[in-house]
Amino acid sequence: MKTIQAVSYPVHFQDKAYKELSSLITKNGYSTIFILVDENTFEHCYPKFIPNLDSEKRIEVIEIESGEINKNIETCIGVWNAITELGGDRKSLLITLGGGVITDLGGFVASCFKRGIDFVNIPTTLLSMVDASVGGKTGVDLGVLKNQIGLFSNPEMVIVDVDFLTTVTEREIKSGMAEIIKYGVTYDIKLFKEIKKNKGLHINDLIFRSIEIKNEVVLQDPKEKNLRKILNFGHTIGHAIESFYLESEDKKNLTHGEAIAIGMVCESYISNKLLNFPETKLNEIKEVVLSIYDRINLLKEDFAGIMELLKHDKKNVNGQVNFVLLNDYENHKLDCKVTEDLIVDSMEFYNF
Amino acid sequence: MKTIQAVSYPVHFQDKAYKELSSLITKNGYSTIFILVDENTFEHCYPKFIPNLDSEKRIEVIEIESGEINKNIETCIGVWNAITELGGDRKSLLITLGGGVITDLGGFVASCFKRGIDFVNIPTTLLSMVDASVGGKTGVDLGVLKNQIGLFSNPEMVIVDVDFLTTVTEREIKSGMAEIIKYGVTYDIKLFKEIKKNKGLHINDLIFRSIEIKNEVVLQDPKEKNLRKILNFGHTIGHAIESFYLESEDKKNLTHGEAIAIGMVCESYISNKLLNFPETKLNEIKEVVLSIYDRINLLKEDFAGIMELLKHDKKNVNGQVNFVLLNDYENHKLDCKVTEDLIVDSMEFYNF
Repeated sequence: MKTIQAVSYPVHFQDKAYKELSSLITKNGYSTIFILVDENTFEHCYPKFIPNLDSEKRIEVIEIESGEINKNIETCIGVWNAITELGGDRKSLLITLGGGVITDLGGFVASCFKRGIDFVNIPTTLLSMVDASVGGKTGVDLGVLKNQIGLFSNPEMVIVDVDFLTTVTEREIKSGMAEIIKYGVTYDIKLFKEIKKNKGLHINDLIFRSIEIKNEVVLQDPKEKNLRKILNFGHTIGHAIESFYLESEDKKNLTHGEAIAIGMVCESYISNKLLNFPETKLNEIKEVVLSIYDRINLLKEDFAGIMELLKHDKKNVNGQVNFVLLNDYENHKLDCKVTEDLIVDSMEFYNF
Repeated sequence: MKTIQAVSYPVHFQDKAYKELSSLITKNGYSTIFILVDENTFEHCYPKFIPNLDSEKRIEVIEIESGEINKNIETCIGVWNAITELGGDRKSLLITLGGGVITDLGGFVASCFKRGIDFVNIPTTLLSMVDASVGGKTGVDLGVLKNQIGLFSNPEMVIVDVDFLTTVTEREIKSGMAEIIKYGVTYDIKLFKEIKKNKGLHINDLIFRSIEIKNEVVLQDPKEKNLRKILNFGHTIGHAIESFYLESEDKKNLTHGEAIAIGMVCESYISNKLLNFPETKLNEIKEVVLSIYDRINLLKEDFAGIMELLKHDKKNVNGQVNFVLLNDYENHKLDCKVTEDLIVDSMEFYNF
């Protein structure tokens, strides 16, 4: 696959990517290469990656515990101390090898260490390939508030190697599919139709087109002042549901994609009510979502708790929850205010 | 005094500054204004500042404990939580009111909160006015390692109001003088000669010229690849001595300026040995330093501990300590390697 050129760095695919990585390392004369992994990617991805790393430089592996729960500043302090103890300096390179937690946290760690060292992202899940690989968002959670602490900061390059997808579960693959559906309904309806009619579509093509779309959006609006907000479609309600399930001890966690899929159904419903988003299309989105993901039963008694979390959404200003909604496929409206009643209705619509 | 235009923001002086701040607040429509202080600046500077803040916006004060020892990530987490609990959003403004700890830490806190909110620096010590006000360096310490975690990030504006200097001690004023001496010997020898011949020179002029010089240097080399390294003159040995005294329980702490002044004498001595920096000028620097600061007796038994800290200097690459040295006044050489023996000799030269 061809390279995609992002704002200030390239996204390389497959074998070509590793040649480019070696060139980068040679060109920039790094002193040490740090590789950030979790226990899963160290076991399953690191052995696939390391034969491709053609370099004589000193290599040090830093492992953190997997899971969103560890995506916090305390973990960052641990990594900063590890890099320091291992003699990291301003000419060090950090390679992140993992899902969104590793790439988001690793990018933040690198960007703040001695006011910034270079980093390269190697996403190993479908979600991190199509979402976290482009766009320059890095960060960690503050308590239950997702990505509350972070930066816009770009890697030197991103490497997308679909072979890593053999290391993850079917459920994790589905988690990434929700973002691809989002790119489809907000930006390129052909992509959505492909998913609807043909579940066997080659994953490589879905990934490539998704990264292309995200890159086009981010190039036009890197700091999320306007167009980039469409990438939040489904995420306002979706994030709140995800956090609520994460906090609730008696519920099993939802993946990011499972929560965002519900969020897209809800926000399509709100779009129908407020902006006349066509009902046939609303039903089409719900149908595709329910063909991929098991239906979750959102309990009435949980609505208040989900609403409370919505009020902490990063996009809020002056206490107002801001939604991006759809007038139609590929046609959005930013900064829509929505009443609590309508949000509750939308969750009931998802339920039935 | 005229406004100085830095890379992407202005440095305003005195009364004009407060008018500009009010305009900024009106123009950008901030939701809330957070003011970061320590217990000293809350008592002495906040009452001077607040009558000048002409705004109807909600104002929230966040206080942290004073002192370099609190310039760490744990303090940042406390401030991030406070901003969150007080309803801070992406349209919040953070005003830092204090010395270098407040401005460095506050700039970092703002730059990472929800991927960056606006901040305005109001330095209240001579050191932070002439050093921290321009240049975009923000950050905190990691253990004893100074500014190990941080970013280059620019405020919306800097306000320099010399009236705040009435709130600080003579010793703190002297701490700032070391940076002005540094600007003199590395960049504008007239400034150094003024300090030498006339201790009564108007402080306003010294501050204005110092900020002008720092700004000229930073504009030419914002990321410290070349020229900006001259601002580290005296700081390589100076920082190590400062950290060593901070760590040693049986010694009283040195101010930043007291340590940097010693560092400048030592590094001038090394310049004389390695680059033939003229001996008369070396003696002139030592004489001016000793006319301002009490002589500290550096103990032979402490040299090894100071040397150990030198090895963690942020500027090091591949374990090599990098010095910026002087060929002559206003004439420097970057990236000089220096042996341990010569560093020891230089500390002995300072002692006698």
